[in-house]
Amino acid sequence: MLSNIRILLVATTHPGNIGATARAMKNMGLTDLGLVTPKIFPSDEADARAAGAEDILQNAQVFNSLDEALADRQQIIGASARLRAVTWPQLNPKQCAEKVIADSHLKTAILFGRERTGLSNEELERCHYLLHIPCNPAFSSLNVAAAVQVVAYELFQAALEKSSASPMPITDEEKANGEEMESFHEHLLETLFAIGFLHERKSSPMLIRRLRRIFNRSALEKTDIHILRGILATIQKKTSRHQTPINTP
Amino acid sequence: MLSNIRILLVATTHPGNIGATARAMKNMGLTDLGLVTPKIFPSDEADARAAGAEDILQNAQVFNSLDEALADRQQIIGASARLRAVTWPQLNPKQCAEKVIADSHLKTAILFGRERTGLSNEELERCHYLLHIPCNPAFSSLNVAAAVQVVAYELFQAALEKSSASPMPITDEEKANGEEMESFHEHLLETLFAIGFLHERKSSPMLIRRLRRIFNRSALEKTDIHILRGILATIQKKTSRHQTPINTP
Repeated sequence: MLSNIRILLVATTHPGNIGATARAMKNMGLTDLGLVTPKIFPSDEADARAAGAEDILQNAQVFNSLDEALADRQQIIGASARLRAVTWPQLNPKQCAEKVIADSHLKTAILFGRERTGLSNEELERCHYLLHIPCNPAFSSLNVAAAVQVVAYELFQAALEKSSASPMPITDEEKANGEEMESFHEHLLETLFAIGFLHERKSSPMLIRRLRRIFNRSALEKTDIHILRGILATIQKKTSRHQTPINTP
Repeated sequence: MLSNIRILLVATTHPGNIGATARAMKNMGLTDLGLVTPKIFPSDEADARAAGAEDILQNAQVFNSLDEALADRQQIIGASARLRAVTWPQLNPKQCAEKVIADSHLKTAILFGRERTGLSNEELERCHYLLHIPCNPAFSSLNVAAAVQVVAYELFQAALEKSSASPMPITDEEKANGEEMESFHEHLLETLFAIGFLHERKSSPMLIRRLRRIFNRSALEKTDIHILRGILATIQKKTSRHQTPINTP
């Protein structure tokens, strides 16, 4: 579902960013990296920052022009930090991911521009959509690999969601049912009366309600109930020993 | 809405990652960076990678221990790439962000571990929730600053969404902070050893972890802690009476 997506870095200056982009892509299951006129490539710094994603770098295609890189692309999306004078169809990362995954049969390119200046107007005009990552307006320039990370993350989540029309079962342990919870609460109160923490007449209903809330909020599993009742039984045994020494084993 | 969120880097090795984290935070409107025993800090490399977010580095707090860093925190979330034996309440970045923004009155810490090994089991057990970024299972180790970028991005989106909905603030009672939770857990274990439910050598760490989880999951308030410790004190008094009858009033 992700194989038709090409991440395209345009005129990247720092090779470290190319390596970090490769790592971000591989983390999120993307494999197709294109580099349009990179300043330095290949490089040791890119390999170091790839940190296990060197295969993405080795398979990266280097293009001499944007035209060449886009020749076979059916859908083109350009990342842009700026708002443009001419309104262009604009997507946030989540919308972009949902669109790209829904159109996963289309050969798509997502363009990320130069570190300092991003994509030129001419480059942006090649795009069907602009991609804007909402962020702090006072400090809006994301590192290019960080921007790829965000977009790749959303692509992976969208692919996961789409493929989980047959969903991965959450194999939680079995939650306690109402009956088990009630028996536990009874056991708890019985024990608290026995040790004298609660007193038949004096204890406020508020306090009892509060105790109930503590454990209800915890969404106890069957095993939890088993452990907690084990503790209660131990307390009962220990304290009843004191009162009826005859029962001591 | 984002001011109560502390990003906490634990034992970070590469100063470049600290700088990149600061940049990722500032891009997404986060300001509170905590560093637990960083290997190298401050450093020129961190400043270079911050690329305009040096103010976040200058205001970063350096802590000598995780305890110190969490002392005033009421909600603790730990990033984890691994799946654990005992299931712990787990959030993806979007769920995490929605929860943290909904609880924006709580002092929250989000922990990110070492570059190679992440957070230790002991550190993860301090957390109310684990945060897992779904990704390529064959290459699942995100760069730490890239992980912060994804989480910060989701936090900013959730804040944006909430501010455009402008709901009523939830006036919860005050949640227990990290220090109160730790004292409670210590008191609980002490009591369980005293009554013989736990045994110094025989009791499994799994069981102890599970007990911790039951109460962490419940998001205890200060008053809850007070009540639970009252129960523990009563149990201790009752059972010590049995062993040392001389103390009986």
